[in-house]
Amino acid sequence: MATGRNHRPATRSRGIPEATVARLPLYLRALTALSERSVPTVSSEELASAAGVNSAKLRKDFSYLGSYGTRGVGYDVEYLVYQISRELGLTQDWPVVIVGIGNLGAALANYGGFASRGFRVAALIDADPALAGRQVAGIGVRHVDELESIIETNGVSIGVITTPGGAAQQVCDRLVAAGVTSILNFAPTVLTVPDGVDVRKVDLSIELQILAFHEQRKAAESLTQDVPEPLAPGAAAPAPGRDQGPDGDIPAVMPA
Amino acid sequence: MATGRNHRPATRSRGIPEATVARLPLYLRALTALSERSVPTVSSEELASAAGVNSAKLRKDFSYLGSYGTRGVGYDVEYLVYQISRELGLTQDWPVVIVGIGNLGAALANYGGFASRGFRVAALIDADPALAGRQVAGIGVRHVDELESIIETNGVSIGVITTPGGAAQQVCDRLVAAGVTSILNFAPTVLTVPDGVDVRKVDLSIELQILAFHEQRKAAESLTQDVPEPLAPGAAAPAPGRDQGPDGDIPAVMPA
Repeated sequence: MATGRNHRPATRSRGIPEATVARLPLYLRALTALSERSVPTVSSEELASAAGVNSAKLRKDFSYLGSYGTRGVGYDVEYLVYQISRELGLTQDWPVVIVGIGNLGAALANYGGFASRGFRVAALIDADPALAGRQVAGIGVRHVDELESIIETNGVSIGVITTPGGAAQQVCDRLVAAGVTSILNFAPTVLTVPDGVDVRKVDLSIELQILAFHEQRKAAESLTQDVPEPLAPGAAAPAPGRDQGPDGDIPAVMPA
Repeated sequence: MATGRNHRPATRSRGIPEATVARLPLYLRALTALSERSVPTVSSEELASAAGVNSAKLRKDFSYLGSYGTRGVGYDVEYLVYQISRELGLTQDWPVVIVGIGNLGAALANYGGFASRGFRVAALIDADPALAGRQVAGIGVRHVDELESIIETNGVSIGVITTPGGAAQQVCDRLVAAGVTSILNFAPTVLTVPDGVDVRKVDLSIELQILAFHEQRKAAESLTQDVPEPLAPGAAAPAPGRDQGPDGDIPAVMPA
């Protein structure tokens, strides 16, 4: 839109578009993989491909961080890891509680990816008295009766719910009443929260659904590959069967 | 671009942009929540907000499916669930194997969200002989020696890897050699696969990172709320502290 007087986009650090915020962890994941391989710099095209984003969008996103790279050199991997981590708030310590210590709660307690991103599991909480005092991932499980005091003592603002669906809303209400303002919900239910509380629901099948789309396409291609259809003039070439970026685990995105 | 002669976008069913494919599961998640509440129709604005996408992008995405809604009525929820499921390939049965039956593998075996999307757990596989024959989620665990015969017998094309990082590449190589062409990787390692094989890596901390961003912002706002800064002329209004859609679990996306 060119109707306003001020043509510069809003780049205040608090004014980052939500869609950009949602992509920052994808960039961070790709950058961390590069960092682990001691790659010092990366071009916007390489990083965009690894993160599954188109490179124009990546450059726009990074402009909100004040990060523009160096022509002919690209972006400094370590510095960009630091910048994105700082922007996401990951350079500070976030104590979290996990409520519901079944297989999924125990798996998350053991999950290395939390600690490396600044999330410290302050407590594991379960309603089963038989679990209380048991060690999971080196942390003692506490009974849900202690939930409020644990939240207060540890200054916890983020709660992870891994209970069965039927218990999730009640646990959510108690977490919020005790001062938690962000909820990560793994339970198969939609939670209701008051204004000012953020809830994100995890659906572990989303990545599988994307794989199924490609499987379906591969199956259709293998059925037709003996009888190639002639391309109509001006038609787009068929997409390749493999949509992955250079590091083999993140599909590239076609510009929409 | 108005330089080409053919102004109509490519809408062949196999020509859906990758970015659209990645959003289809988000629409499906939001639509399923509406369906569970017996909501019959939904406007593009409501659905876009619930899915965390802007509504112009949603309408563009749905045009690839040939779905345009009805003016003044919106989209038929059940029909759209069917259309998206079909497009993603979820109306067919996808047998999957889960390799590595620790807490995470067991949690996934018990996860209701797979079966409801057409993913049937055909087998659970582990390298520990002590686990073989044990029942998890009503399915007997099989020893990894049987991996190749399980893949062949069940016609499995999708494998889920939940082993420790050190074992993941070897398991991946065996899955691929046995005919698996899509891998969902939960192990903390980057997998190398041949052309024609799709790998998606799950990072369970991504949603937590987005919550941390908002927590950081809420903390900054509560520090400054007693001393409101005057807005500069033409400056954007500050984003509200809560960015959630109407069903309270999916943040809305500001148009970039």
